This record gives sequence, structure tokens and C-alpha cells, in this order.
Amino acid sequence: MTHTQTLANFAAQLRFDQIPVDVIRRTEDLFLDWYGSALAGRGARPVETIHKLAFEFGPSFGPCEVLTSRRTTSSFFAALVNAAASHFAEQDDLHNSSVLHPATVVFPATLAVAQSLGRSGKEFLTACVAGYEVGVRVGEFLGRSHYKTFHTTGTVGTLAAAAAVGRLLNLDGEQMLHAFGSAGTQAAGLWQFLKDAADSKQLHTAKAAASGLFAAYLAAEGFTGAVDILEGEKGMGAGMSDQTHPDKLVDRLGTRWALAETSFKYHASCRHTHPAADALLQIIERNALKPDDIERVVTHVHQAAIDVLGPVVNPQTIHQAKFSMGTVLGLVSAYGHAGVREFDAHYASPDIARFRDKVRMELDPEVDSAYPARWVGKVTVTTKDGRTLEGRVDDPKGDPGNTLSRAELEHKVRTLALYADAATEAEVTESIGKIWAIAEAKVVPSLLASRNPENRHV
Amino acid sequence: MTHTQTLANFAAQLRFDQIPVDVIRRTEDLFLDWYGSALAGRGARPVETIHKLAFEFGPSFGPCEVLTSRRTTSSFFAALVNAAASHFAEQDDLHNSSVLHPATVVFPATLAVAQSLGRSGKEFLTACVAGYEVGVRVGEFLGRSHYKTFHTTGTVGTLAAAAAVGRLLNLDGEQMLHAFGSAGTQAAGLWQFLKDAADSKQLHTAKAAASGLFAAYLAAEGFTGAVDILEGEKGMGAGMSDQTHPDKLVDRLGTRWALAETSFKYHASCRHTHPAADALLQIIERNALKPDDIERVVTHVHQAAIDVLGPVVNPQTIHQAKFSMGTVLGLVSAYGHAGVREFDAHYASPDIARFRDKVRMELDPEVDSAYPARWVGKVTVTTKDGRTLEGRVDDPKGDPGNTLSRAELEHKVRTLALYADAATEAEVTESIGKIWAIAEAKVVPSLLASRNPENRHV
Repeated sequence: MTHTQTLANFAAQLRFDQIPVDVIRRTEDLFLDWYGSALAGRGARPVETIHKLAFEFGPSFGPCEVLTSRRTTSSFFAALVNAAASHFAEQDDLHNSSVLHPATVVFPATLAVAQSLGRSGKEFLTACVAGYEVGVRVGEFLGRSHYKTFHTTGTVGTLAAAAAVGRLLNLDGEQMLHAFGSAGTQAAGLWQFLKDAADSKQLHTAKAAASGLFAAYLAAEGFTGAVDILEGEKGMGAGMSDQTHPDKLVDRLGTRWALAETSFKYHASCRHTHPAADALLQIIERNALKPDDIERVVTHVHQAAIDVLGPVVNPQTIHQAKFSMGTVLGLVSAYGHAGVREFDAHYASPDIARFRDKVRMELDPEVDSAYPARWVGKVTVTTKDGRTLEGRVDDPKGDPGNTLSRAELEHKVRTLALYADAATEAEVTESIGKIWAIAEAKVVPSLLASRNPENRHV
Repeated sequence: MTHTQTLANFAAQLRFDQIPVDVIRRTEDLFLDWYGSALAGRGARPVETIHKLAFEFGPSFGPCEVLTSRRTTSSFFAALVNAAASHFAEQDDLHNSSVLHPATVVFPATLAVAQSLGRSGKEFLTACVAGYEVGVRVGEFLGRSHYKTFHTTGTVGTLAAAAAVGRLLNLDGEQMLHAFGSAGTQAAGLWQFLKDAADSKQLHTAKAAASGLFAAYLAAEGFTGAVDILEGEKGMGAGMSDQTHPDKLVDRLGTRWALAETSFKYHASCRHTHPAADALLQIIERNALKPDDIERVVTHVHQAAIDVLGPVVNPQTIHQAKFSMGTVLGLVSAYGHAGVREFDAHYASPDIARFRDKVRMELDPEVDSAYPARWVGKVTVTTKDGRTLEGRVDDPKGDPGNTLSRAELEHKVRTLALYADAATEAEVTESIGKIWAIAEAKVVPSLLASRNPENRHV
């Protein structure tokens, strides 16, 4: 039996009662966190464009909700739009060692299909866990060399979505393997867009969720895919990675819960900026510094941070600024947090640009060798009065060792929803209630579409 | 200006009156040939599955026809299904040096959008030419190392479809560049499925046509893509090829018409089998051999033939048999042609299996170095009575130097349509009339959907 078959069997056979209760609770946390990110995409031009085309090419009504607009459509298009929306604000979760953002691909596909088929909350949660466990392991299998050129969330996300939807469709192990095959052969997403601050990031997650969903439905209908899409000599590993890690595919299945290793994002920026942001904040707080006290900042980073953030020298848009180490550190130094509101108001201000130019990245062997299992923050600040100050954070805020509480998550989600004018305080409260109670739901409920009077069918 | 920008400008600015009349006539030939291939997919399990899901996830009615069922839907789903259908029978066209099957991705997307927007026949033909010219050049750019792992028609086909639809949407050069960016970052399709005779091939073309169409519509709405998706350091060339050929991207734009270099398929099998099939036929005809006279056949082939056909040792399905060199030569030796009917009736017969086991492939340096610009057929037959006979074909039937006449194309299309029970003789005749007159059509007409009484809206 191949590793891929073992992983497919695991995903197909996963049962709610096999999953530890703290992993279920964390899945609910991640779901709420995702809900906030999805609402935060409301009004963003790339998201609205994908929304417009979804209703041009897809049905105008259906069993599945689009969170940003409260409209309904088929599962394929609801997954497409919700996945685009939830990857816009750079607030969605991240699994460190796979460098995969699982929520933005797993929840859109699974929520849509659960709503389409009237599945229970327990079935929904089980499917989401299957998606996380598969996605993380495939991401670790493809490794760092894949991530150098490919946007892992776009590529691997297709398999994560297929695994989750496949579980919800009750695929058997063989069908699940075919779903993996059809997902892997649709997997796409290149980093080239970063250089131009182009809109591809939302397209990647949109397509990953929809294509993964499509792969699972194909498999349910008997459509076959390559049985060794990951390790085969013309498969993903061969074509899209220079060094794979086959053992990762089956790493402690059923005992290691990769989902619980997933980090929440505290800052609204690329996760590669967070360790340095928290380490800088540590120095600033311990030494009571003001931005103008700082002469120079050196961030000691892993290579992937340089690869992803290095090209962004003079960010032209908010979204690009989220990939500018200097901008993020500038916001943190001035406001203590680089959240959606700080970016909106200040990303292009002269003060922040001035701070940005004080920051540089240096490859650090210790940080680089710890990555991607650990994302260590190490920063050296030189002050104008000549001091050299060192900061270090081993668990950036949001990492499993320094996670967000339910109260902090609720606060984050409220902030995002109100920021995007996507829901009222009361509506968010109602959604939070539904999400904390999801494990007991007989049928996964509509979160917001039922509040749209046009949706009498929901 | 980058090569990609130059190519995008060419596609955006191409005008009907710039295209030589023989190239227009050949476009009509290729369109008719494609129509036959699309009908030939009717009833094929993978095609019907994609059809079923298209109507589950997409609208039940729309301005665009699905040829196999005569139903209508949105352009996205019509492109998806027609592209799946037209790549099933292994009868669709092939451009040699790019190893791209352009028709199966270009025509579905362009026909659907032309029907959706009510475009003229001239606009339709111009857009199709743009799609072929772009697709071929991108395929040549990515080269042989890409084709080793990736199904070029799936990957590059996404850009070809985007270019064609982009032209139909009247994108300007900059928008076209963004369409290329959004297409390239969706490009996918791995050869791994061949080993299992899995159904991915139709999924690849379906997704290429639909994703390319989506990319062009995104660009029309202002959605941006990477501006250097081909040559950029995290683009398709970097991630999906070991050796690119940048000059090919702009090779004689406006004077070299790559569309006219496209080959029609005479046999209903993988094109890599055709040169050897024709060379064997030459030996058989010249020497009046019967299959049982033959002791052994050595085909002298290019490496890609070994890569694609080599894994198929004991084909289990008709579709897999189309990738078995021995099966194809067996059919040719017994029936003089490996067409859809010969495959259906005899692919699994003991006689053919016995012949199959007499055939082996050997890498030939001369054939390999001519490839992919030329697909040379070289075969050595050893007869049971001890003779050694050599056959050689420099232009396999269907290649530009040995092309099919309009009468031969009409015959091929009738055969395919009747074979699949997809249209009557009279209906095919009517469609042929519409296609030969397409350049004068004020609006691209429905080919078959108007004959479905449920489609009063067409």
C-alpha cells in the first residue's frame, strides 16, 4: 500500500468519535476565525470580481450561502467565492511546517457541501479535520522547494478541499484516492504574481476550494484519477518539487492532530512578518522605545521570508504592504499592532515609509534551520542613542504555544466583520453562537444568508 | 517590452483582415474536425460525469450549447463540457512542435463565448487564430522537459483559451497580459494518470478551457495577473520546465501561422503512435503482408513516445489501448486503419493482443532529434520467412505536408457523429454547411442545440 493510499484511507474512515475533544474545540475556533476572514473580504475588488463572475456563470439561487453578499448559489460557486473572500485580509490561519493556509480552502468547500446536502455539525467538523490532516501532510511532503515557486495553499489546498468534501460525501478509501488524483492533477498556483501585487492570491484559493470540491464529486460518480498522484514519477512530487518528504504523508495518522498545530493570525499581514513583528514589539515594550528612537532594525529570518517578502520594496497597495516587512514593523512600532484598521489608515503614511526604510532582512542559520516547523522571531534594534537591543520570540502570538483565547477570537472576528461592514454586532453574535454550537447542530445552518429576505428557500 | 507582453499585444490586436485566407480556411477545417471530436465524446463515461456535474453546479439553461446533449448553459460550463467531450476519442488535432492539442481547448471556450455574446463568425475565427498562435508558442516555450511531466494541453491550453476568449472580449494588450497571468497561475495537468488509464485527460481539457475563459473574463473586469507569468523567476517556466525557449514566444508573429502547421488525426489513437502506424502500413502495402506474416516489429521512435506509451503494456480499456503502440499497430496490420470503430470492435481481441506482443519501441537518435518539429515514422519488420523490411514516413497522414481534404474531413466527422449516435446524417450535413459558411455568419449560430425543442431560447 502506498503512502497516498494510506492517507486516503485515513481521510475516508475518520470518525467524529476518534477525534479528541480538544481537537474538535480547536476546529470550532478555526471555523469562527475563518468566518471572520471571509467577511473581511467583503468589498475587496478582486473578491467582488470573482463574486460577479460566479453569478454570471453559476446559478442565481441555490442551497449554499455566499457570506459576503448573503446570496445563495450552488456549492461549487459558494466555495469559489467564500474561498476568495477569506484569503484577502491576510487574517486567515496558517499551519507552520506545511506553510499551508488550511482554513481558506477547507471551510469554504466543506461548508458549501454541508449546506447543500444537509449534513450534521458532527459530519461537517469531521470532514474539516480530514481536510486539515491531509492538507498539512501533503504540504509537508512537497516541502520547501515546492513553496519556493508554488503557492502551497493553491496547489495543496486542492487536495485538502477534496479530502474534506470526500469525507462529507462518504467516499470509500478507493474513491478518496481517485479524488486525490483528480485534485492533484488540477493543482495550480504560482508565486509570480507577488512581484506585481497582482490579484492572483484570491484566485488561487477560490480555485483550490472549487476544484477540490469538483474532484470529490467526480470520485463519487466513479470518475478515476491517478492512484499515485503524489509519489508517482509523473506526479506532483516529480513535477512540482525538488525534494519531497514521503514519510510526512503518513506521519502519525490518528495520533498527531496537525489541525491543532495551526496558528491564528494576530497581525493582518503575511505570516512571515509575524515573528519579527512580535520580537520587535518585545524590544519596544521592554525598553519603552518610540519609533523615532530607532535607527535601524535587522530581522534575522528564514529564507522563505526573503523569497516572499524580498521583492516588496516600495508597496503600492494595502495588500502589497502586507508583504512588506518594513511596513509591518513600522505599524507595530507606531501602534503596537498591524491589524486591518492600522493598514487601512497608515500603510502609505510618510512616517511608516520612513520606518520601513530602516528595516532589512538577513538570513539567519538558526531561524532558517528551525523553519518551517518553528517560526522563530529574532530582531536586532540599533537605537539612535547607540544601544544594540536584541529581541526573540519562539512562539509568535497565535501559534499553538501562544494561541488566541475564544474571547480574543471573538474580538478579532467582530473587528473584521465591522471593518468590512459585512455584519452588525448582533449578527456576528448570532453567528458566534451558531458556531460554538455547531457540534450539536442536526444540520449545518445558514450563518447569514437566512437574514437576507430574498432567500426564502434557505 | 517582455516577450510575453509582445505576444499578448499580438493576440489583442489581431484582426481578421490580417490573417491570410488559407489560414482562415484551415481554421474552418480545424473547427469542423473539432466538432466531430466533440460529438464523438457523447456517451463516454468520463464525459457524461463531467456533464452531470456541470448541470448540478451550473445553470440549467443559458445562451451556450453543449454539443453532446444539445442542452444549454452558461459559457463557463458549455466550455467545460465541450472540452471534455472533444478530447475523448483521440481524434482531435495536434500541433507537432508544441505537442499541444489546440482545438480541444480553443474551440470550446471560443464557441461558448461567441454564442453568449452574439459575436460574428469573423470575430470568432479571429479569436480562434489568436488562441492557436498563443498556445503553440507557449507550448514551444515550455518545451520537451515540460511535456515530460505535464500534459501540455491542460497547462498551456489554459493560456490558449484565455487568449482566444480575451480576443473575443476585445481586451487591450495590458488586459490580455493580465489574462495570461491569471491563466498561467491556474495551469495544471500531470501525466501520472496515464499509468492507471485514469479519466484525467478529459478533466484537463475541460478545466483548461473553462479556466482560460475565466481568466479572460477576470481581466475584462480589471482583475490583475502576474505580468511575467511565463519568464518570471516564479512563473511557469521556472516552476514547470527545466529548459525553456524564450525566443519561441515571439517567433515570427504575424508571418508564421502556427495554426496552419496543425495536424489532423487520421487514426483514433495517441498521436505518438501515428508515424509508426503509417510506416508499418507502408511496409504492409508494398509487400502485401498479412498480420501473421510478421514475426517482429521494431518502431524507431522519439523519447516522448517511450515516455507516454511505454507504461501501457497490457491495456485494459479502449482508451488505454489508444496509448498502446502494439495495439495500434495490430489494428493497422489487420484493418488498415485504427479508427474509432476498429478500436471498439477489436482492441481486446486475442489476435490484436498477439500482434501487440510482437511490437517494441526503440529510441532512435535521428527521429528523436527531429522531434518535436517533425514526427518521423521509422519501422523495421522482420517477417516469419526471414526478411527484414524497412518503412519510413516523413509526413504521417494528417500532417500539413499530407493533410486531410475537406471531403476526408467531412467523412471523418460523419463517422464520428454516427459512431457516437450524436447526430443524424442530415444534422451533420446541416452543421457542415454552417461551419463552411461561418466566416459570413453575422452571429455564430447554434450547431445542434436549436434542434432541441426544449431550447426555445436559443
